[in-house]
Amino acid sequence: MSVDVAQQLAVFKRGADELLVEADVARKLARGTPLRIKLGLDPTAPDIHLGHTVVLNKMRQMQDLGHQVIFLIGDFTTMIGDPSGRNDMRPPLSREQIEANAKTYHAQASKVLDPARTEIRYNSEWSEPLGAAGMIKLAAKYTVARMLERDDFAKRYAANQPIAVHEFLYPLLQGYDSVALKADIELGGTDQKFNLLVGRELQRHYGQEPQCILTMPLLLGLDGVDKMSKSKGNYIGITEAPAEMFAKLMSVSDVLMWNYYELLSFRSLDEIAQLKRECDAGRNPRDAKVALAKEIVARFHCAADADSALAEFEARFRDGAMPQDMPELTLATDGTGLPIAQLAKRAGIVESTSDALRLIAQRGLKVDGDVVADRALLIPAGTTVVVQAGKRKFARVTLS
Amino acid sequence: MSVDVAQQLAVFKRGADELLVEADVARKLARGTPLRIKLGLDPTAPDIHLGHTVVLNKMRQMQDLGHQVIFLIGDFTTMIGDPSGRNDMRPPLSREQIEANAKTYHAQASKVLDPARTEIRYNSEWSEPLGAAGMIKLAAKYTVARMLERDDFAKRYAANQPIAVHEFLYPLLQGYDSVALKADIELGGTDQKFNLLVGRELQRHYGQEPQCILTMPLLLGLDGVDKMSKSKGNYIGITEAPAEMFAKLMSVSDVLMWNYYELLSFRSLDEIAQLKRECDAGRNPRDAKVALAKEIVARFHCAADADSALAEFEARFRDGAMPQDMPELTLATDGTGLPIAQLAKRAGIVESTSDALRLIAQRGLKVDGDVVADRALLIPAGTTVVVQAGKRKFARVTLS
Repeated sequence: MSVDVAQQLAVFKRGADELLVEADVARKLARGTPLRIKLGLDPTAPDIHLGHTVVLNKMRQMQDLGHQVIFLIGDFTTMIGDPSGRNDMRPPLSREQIEANAKTYHAQASKVLDPARTEIRYNSEWSEPLGAAGMIKLAAKYTVARMLERDDFAKRYAANQPIAVHEFLYPLLQGYDSVALKADIELGGTDQKFNLLVGRELQRHYGQEPQCILTMPLLLGLDGVDKMSKSKGNYIGITEAPAEMFAKLMSVSDVLMWNYYELLSFRSLDEIAQLKRECDAGRNPRDAKVALAKEIVARFHCAADADSALAEFEARFRDGAMPQDMPELTLATDGTGLPIAQLAKRAGIVESTSDALRLIAQRGLKVDGDVVADRALLIPAGTTVVVQAGKRKFARVTLS
Repeated sequence: MSVDVAQQLAVFKRGADELLVEADVARKLARGTPLRIKLGLDPTAPDIHLGHTVVLNKMRQMQDLGHQVIFLIGDFTTMIGDPSGRNDMRPPLSREQIEANAKTYHAQASKVLDPARTEIRYNSEWSEPLGAAGMIKLAAKYTVARMLERDDFAKRYAANQPIAVHEFLYPLLQGYDSVALKADIELGGTDQKFNLLVGRELQRHYGQEPQCILTMPLLLGLDGVDKMSKSKGNYIGITEAPAEMFAKLMSVSDVLMWNYYELLSFRSLDEIAQLKRECDAGRNPRDAKVALAKEIVARFHCAADADSALAEFEARFRDGAMPQDMPELTLATDGTGLPIAQLAKRAGIVESTSDALRLIAQRGLKVDGDVVADRALLIPAGTTVVVQAGKRKFARVTLS
């Protein structure tokens, strides 16, 4: 706890969406005792991708400042599942499944957090003993109108989509976790803000100092458009092989790279600013991208794996005779994307779309080193690809 | 169970506000097995007045037809009280207080019901074991939108008055009582309709045949305007002394008397219709009122007490030289009432309001046999009083 309050606040706020209430955080920090930092986890989906690590990174930074990080497994409600039966995606899980998922999650998260200094708790510990009476008393601490202010509830209510009464109990249980844990700060995604604030309010009801909340933005996926998610296929799983992880990181746009630096790198903001200044002054941004990719691969594998991944990546492009430098351009689309033939023409690596189609038939057109087999291939908006016509003509194209 | 379905339905529907769904009740009755009739009671207010007996009378009639009557004491929620702290009138009660109240209530209700054939249950029996998880599962069976359709919730929500989330749990718990009791019919006041219907729905969720509901109107108070209630002072407590009870019943208007006959008397509808025909043909309605007052006093005390009460009532008016027959009239008011001096003038027992004020100063003006001491006395709208000027001038005046 030797780092001063202003410096700690700067670390807390790095890349954050909101820190509420900053003055309260400052006051808590000024006491010099470690803060209790809560992160609630849903033990239904144990496979973590880089998007999930944004908030874990913040936890790690706080951990490095000497604060007590708490991994809160929401096993109680998970064991209930969605009792309305409307949500097939939330079947009840058994105690064993939950523990197995939590273990997997924790093992994965330990690539980011220091497991020895992470407290793991299950909320059934205090939720079950509430009993029916305790549940009612808890529900008395919040109004229906306030609950309906939550964005998704408000939208569903306005659209006449059913909200089951028990859905109002979940934010309260989540808030009660903060009471039980005496949390000083709770972390979450921006979409969790309402629930985090419920915790703040419940603590006040229970005579505790209310927790502060720190929300982190959702990480954009590799496409730079949608948030990173499995269903969009624009993600990097933290258990993916080094080479794959490396190549995927190298594929992001330069703009997205700086965002990834802020949210995913452990380099200091000063270092990053310096790197950016160098790139702005003419240094190839590829250098920065390589550095980021190496850092991330090393985190989830090891430094040697990162080096091999880089070597493999370079060899692949060398064998494909892909130059380090090539024309880079951005093409406007109608929002969906561009057919590969049009893209090749507008990128200036073929004379016409019929040229492009002929090349495809001769297996002479490549995207990111792969031969294009489908003449109707659509490159989606928001992606950056390297297109190659024959052996010499290259372009790095970003579709807006 | 020898009485046929149509006859039983007629008994069920006598004086009732609604019977839902009549065809289902008929089907249940046709099976020939006793129905389980549920009445939920709030053990906070153990003093019963005639208004409370309306639904007990219906229970008794069903009991006499051979059905199983269940007195359900809502001890579980009463032990919790109003945890939002907003309602000072609902402090939590201890198990001992609840049992004492329930005992008092049952003793009083036994003047109407046959205690030997009344099942008494406490809902903590199945509510407590629900636990926090069971409470959540129960809450999943109903939507927020449906809950907000309840009249008082809808009004409060529209008026931005707070509704605490736990208030949504109470109708569900009450409905779950019907599941636990396997109720065939639930009785209640018209204001309970929503809650009774929740029970119907929950039983369906739990794979039971849904209960039917029978709502009884709220009994009007002695003033014939507001519903009978302690706070309005327009009530007859069932433990009141025979003479008091008798006199209060004699004070009701002729119109209200027939309503009381329907809701409070155990005479058959045929007998009542005959009595009404006689009065319409010229018989003094006072006879019918005496008969009703005697029946009610005998029910809560005994036949001998009823006779003495009648004798006392008659002696009182004889000693006061109050004639059996006197002018009866109805005076229009602005809705609040009339000052006594104006009333006396408009009733024709004094020449002018100043005459009336002079009489009051001389202690010569009486209302219901009591000397008027306050010259500003306001007789409220909706009441019927006997005013007397000096020894000979009387009028029975109803203020509209």
